[in-house]
Amino acid sequence: MEIREVFARNLKAARLAKGLSQEELAFRADIDRTYISSLERSVYNASIDVVDRLAAILEVEASDLLKRPPEKK
Amino acid sequence: MEIREVFARNLKAARLAKGLSQEELAFRADIDRTYISSLERSVYNASIDVVDRLAAILEVEASDLLKRPPEKK
Repeated sequence: MEIREVFARNLKAARLAKGLSQEELAFRADIDRTYISSLERSVYNASIDVVDRLAAILEVEASDLLKRPPEKK
Repeated sequence: MEIREVFARNLKAARLAKGLSQEELAFRADIDRTYISSLERSVYNASIDVVDRLAAILEVEASDLLKRPPEKK
């Protein structure tokens, strides 16, 4: 799985776990809502600064957002 | 600790653990040697694509390169 897709899935899961809309997360991170939407669709190659900023708001570690799901056997 | 510094330290540690010089890592990743040097000095805000490409060469997970060291008590 491409790392952008890994990040996209983890970002969306962490956002939903916090009960935040894309709008609310975007507002808190001072990022455009369309950018959050694009990240969740694997459109952009996020920088680690952005990953860390979003992680802080979502109360997870930046490394958690890049964790690949276990391989299917 | 800033995420760039976390990445810088982990990148350098993983590179040295593999016994690679900055030149060798740069060559294998098809990245300029000065870019690797800058990443290890926290100068640039790496993208997750670059983090993942370097992780693959160093045989670690992208998430490992963003892991913060345990907090000092």
